[in-house]
Amino acid sequence: MNRTYLDWNATAPLRPEARAAMLAAMDVVGNPSSVHAEGRAAKSLVEKARAQVAAAVGCNVSEVVFTSGATEAARVLENRPAGCDVMVQDTAHDCLWSHFDLSNEDGAGGHTLAMGLANSETGVITEPPARDAEGLLPYGARKANYLLLDAVQAVGKIPFAFSWSGADLAIVSAHKFGGPKGVGALIVKQGLDITSLAVGGGQEMGRRSGTENIIGIAGFGAAAEAAQRDLEVGIPDQVEKLRNILENTLAAEANKTIFVGKDARRIPNTSCFITPGWKGETQVMQMDLAGFAISAGSACSSGKVKESRVLRAMGYDADQARSAVRVSLGPTTTEDDVLRFAEAWLKAWSRHQARAA
Amino acid sequence: MNRTYLDWNATAPLRPEARAAMLAAMDVVGNPSSVHAEGRAAKSLVEKARAQVAAAVGCNVSEVVFTSGATEAARVLENRPAGCDVMVQDTAHDCLWSHFDLSNEDGAGGHTLAMGLANSETGVITEPPARDAEGLLPYGARKANYLLLDAVQAVGKIPFAFSWSGADLAIVSAHKFGGPKGVGALIVKQGLDITSLAVGGGQEMGRRSGTENIIGIAGFGAAAEAAQRDLEVGIPDQVEKLRNILENTLAAEANKTIFVGKDARRIPNTSCFITPGWKGETQVMQMDLAGFAISAGSACSSGKVKESRVLRAMGYDADQARSAVRVSLGPTTTEDDVLRFAEAWLKAWSRHQARAA
Repeated sequence: MNRTYLDWNATAPLRPEARAAMLAAMDVVGNPSSVHAEGRAAKSLVEKARAQVAAAVGCNVSEVVFTSGATEAARVLENRPAGCDVMVQDTAHDCLWSHFDLSNEDGAGGHTLAMGLANSETGVITEPPARDAEGLLPYGARKANYLLLDAVQAVGKIPFAFSWSGADLAIVSAHKFGGPKGVGALIVKQGLDITSLAVGGGQEMGRRSGTENIIGIAGFGAAAEAAQRDLEVGIPDQVEKLRNILENTLAAEANKTIFVGKDARRIPNTSCFITPGWKGETQVMQMDLAGFAISAGSACSSGKVKESRVLRAMGYDADQARSAVRVSLGPTTTEDDVLRFAEAWLKAWSRHQARAA
Repeated sequence: MNRTYLDWNATAPLRPEARAAMLAAMDVVGNPSSVHAEGRAAKSLVEKARAQVAAAVGCNVSEVVFTSGATEAARVLENRPAGCDVMVQDTAHDCLWSHFDLSNEDGAGGHTLAMGLANSETGVITEPPARDAEGLLPYGARKANYLLLDAVQAVGKIPFAFSWSGADLAIVSAHKFGGPKGVGALIVKQGLDITSLAVGGGQEMGRRSGTENIIGIAGFGAAAEAAQRDLEVGIPDQVEKLRNILENTLAAEANKTIFVGKDARRIPNTSCFITPGWKGETQVMQMDLAGFAISAGSACSSGKVKESRVLRAMGYDADQARSAVRVSLGPTTTEDDVLRFAEAWLKAWSRHQARAA
């Protein structure tokens, strides 16, 4: 069956540029830690990708620490200095949230605010707080010294520059913008001393040991460069138009459907909508059978039947939080994809209403 | 220039089977955690590779936890239960050794012995101790409850079955037998409860969170299967013959050269030899210029000019430990490769002697 993939926030298809870079990297034999010609060739692949990633996320080359993805990068929270407290934004991704139980520190080592720049489920953008006169970051009634920004869903979708963000640390994942899964980066502000994410051979200047995933890293670099170029030529604006067409088409008929964050600033590709009384999982299954890949909640937790923690934190009730789906588009999504999805979804919604009536 | 790669213990060239599996995986769009068809297709790639790895390392499918490599897998030592002491074999790889400073526990939570089955620098095989009548593992004057076996350099080179090894945990790395770099596995004996290596989305049955590196995992599985097949048809025996030809050719002329572990049981592909008075790094550089990739010490530390900790632990003096190189062969190494290397090395050794005289 012809399939239409509308779950780009879960993972994006591999970009052709990433594929080509990965194929080329497959022929590079050496270990980047080896001193011979083969080792140096492997090392230079890693360093080329580091420069590409740095250019795309607006940081210095030496600030990029390659990891096996965002989750590993988030481990920096576990390795923080003794006594350093962590405040986690309530809508943050599980990979930050899971560290919450580690945060019962006295704060004598400072406070770190860990937050997502763009929410994966809703696409809503949260601007990080600006530093006050003392250089602190107000967050609710408290103030943080350090900012860890989860930029996973923002990079490639909205302009982002680490050096302008005010963040001390940022997390990036390759597969969200067309790189391979299982590779990402922790961006570490120059001068900030972090404990190694992994100890061993001392790779990544001692900040993350383990033989480098050079094929994946090459794909990451190429995808970052391509995503950056897409941004520069306005691809996200086109994606946003399609997202709006989708929402308007649905809203014209499904008048009980709530579009989450419609009035907030959102990343351009994401639509999260609640149709009370119609479970998100049911919608995902029905759309899957009709040939469309969408999701209920974030991919990591999408296998589990539970209400969205993020939507609950935004004030939606349990029934509403269970009745949400996320449709997320990408640079190759077409207007036809969106209109066919809207048609199929509205048809299923009619059937659901008829059964419920 | 025509190059000859003789540094397979640092990293092996990608096997064609791994390359093909990775190419196929590049076309699989979904996130393995997604419930739709694309997600299920990605999940099935991961599960196919899990079965291939389990077959190659002789364990149950559910015992395989995919990681970003051996170093991450070794993190299980950091996550051990409170009070659990770790004894690390003195010749173990840095990724185990780095945990040594964490081992000052009282042992109330038991003792874990962490050791390498085959040493990366020398190829020497250390049989793990057999359990005594109380089910404990004697190690020196002490006894361990748990065994973590670093099988990185053994898998694909000698028959290995986790379920027969007596190990509770084992570490495997794909790129040492022709899979991609940046992917590996922790093998966890059924029933052994481990703390999650990474917290977040709950992948790998909660034992290692983070979106799966599906392209790398597919390559890992295919390489494991191919390496297993090589073992079955006797490829390592052919490799051993070449290794012995190499050592005999060198020994015939370089009579001061010591072949480390020559009388011990070794993996078949590895030759580590000490030529007193001729620094290992110098040899590596001269051979590199002559078109041969070899190493001094393990790859992770090969960029650093220091004596081999492993050779020192074996009783060699500092000068000897600085004068060692490692030549490691693979399934595609030819007799011509080995003979040309021997010729080039002996020529360089003559020059060195002439200068020193």
